[in-house]
Amino acid sequence: MKIVVIGATGTIGAPVVEALAARHEVIRASRHGRPAIDIDDPASIAAFYRELGVGSVDAVVCAAGAGRFRPLEELTDEDFAFSFASKLMGQINVVRRGIPHLRDNGSFTLTSGVLAQKPAPGSGAIAPVNAAVEAFARAAALELPRGLRINVVSPPWVRETLQKLGRDPAGGLPAADVARAYVAAVEGRQNGAVIDPAALA
Amino acid sequence: MKIVVIGATGTIGAPVVEALAARHEVIRASRHGRPAIDIDDPASIAAFYRELGVGSVDAVVCAAGAGRFRPLEELTDEDFAFSFASKLMGQINVVRRGIPHLRDNGSFTLTSGVLAQKPAPGSGAIAPVNAAVEAFARAAALELPRGLRINVVSPPWVRETLQKLGRDPAGGLPAADVARAYVAAVEGRQNGAVIDPAALA
Repeated sequence: MKIVVIGATGTIGAPVVEALAARHEVIRASRHGRPAIDIDDPASIAAFYRELGVGSVDAVVCAAGAGRFRPLEELTDEDFAFSFASKLMGQINVVRRGIPHLRDNGSFTLTSGVLAQKPAPGSGAIAPVNAAVEAFARAAALELPRGLRINVVSPPWVRETLQKLGRDPAGGLPAADVARAYVAAVEGRQNGAVIDPAALA
Repeated sequence: MKIVVIGATGTIGAPVVEALAARHEVIRASRHGRPAIDIDDPASIAAFYRELGVGSVDAVVCAAGAGRFRPLEELTDEDFAFSFASKLMGQINVVRRGIPHLRDNGSFTLTSGVLAQKPAPGSGAIAPVNAAVEAFARAAALELPRGLRINVVSPPWVRETLQKLGRDPAGGLPAADVARAYVAAVEGRQNGAVIDPAALA
């Protein structure tokens, strides 16, 4: 398969690329890489797909998009607007704009996160974003044309992310294990599923 | 208790008012009523609460907010923006701006919908909105100050709504039964819960 990975240089994206590249042709897309895509910016998404061409790939994996983590009463209007525009609407737009660029029976795989269902203090903006990504995929799965599929990987806390945050990494799942869930979504037949990598590991 | 119902003239709001008014003092707020509140407009929410006063009510119930229902490939950027600004960010802002106006141990009750978990074709914008409202409540429940609570009622298809849409109302739950879930949320001790009125009826 020919597969686009958006966020290819990220904590999750990099091992996803590594896992997929063993068996597939992978196009590594990222904000500051080549090809470049900034999913926060609808024009960047459009330009990326224009360059890619119509009906040119079998799968698009998105491991990009950010959200703000902050105590409820400190979250600003801008924190919500940023989070909704990036990890939520950014990923929705990757799908909406990407449909014509997928070959028949291709797939989208998006990224949510455990906070969607199991919030922690500080997740007043990011928990709704993650849950909305999952619900969008469940809904879109009913309507995608030409046998296209869509799934969401909902990573738990990732070991490497905890390390970067200076927190105890022991409770985190290694990013390489998280990556296996993306491979399962791309290579499998699921549609409208929310995949928990911890359940696969 | 002194309770604000936002969307007091709506299909769900009106029976919620009726059910609560038997035992409580109810302030009936709506877009074109008095007091007026348009939750799509942050300035309207701020003005409403300013008029209400600090620490002045025991509960705020929101049965307002709209979303667009349309086939996936016909949903426009504006459909998503409108839905996110209205039923999602509108309700989040009712909570964020409302915190100082609730008395200790007061509560917020918001509205999502069955499409959050069980989408239908056409719910690509509204399913994520509903799921995000639920996730926001789960997250905010961990952080609200002074014993404040927050819950979400997730109505199934409502009989009166199906009638208005010219569809078979037989599969719908009567709005009066949906209203009982809001009463349970206001009078109970739940926090961070998503309440299915069909499970109570």
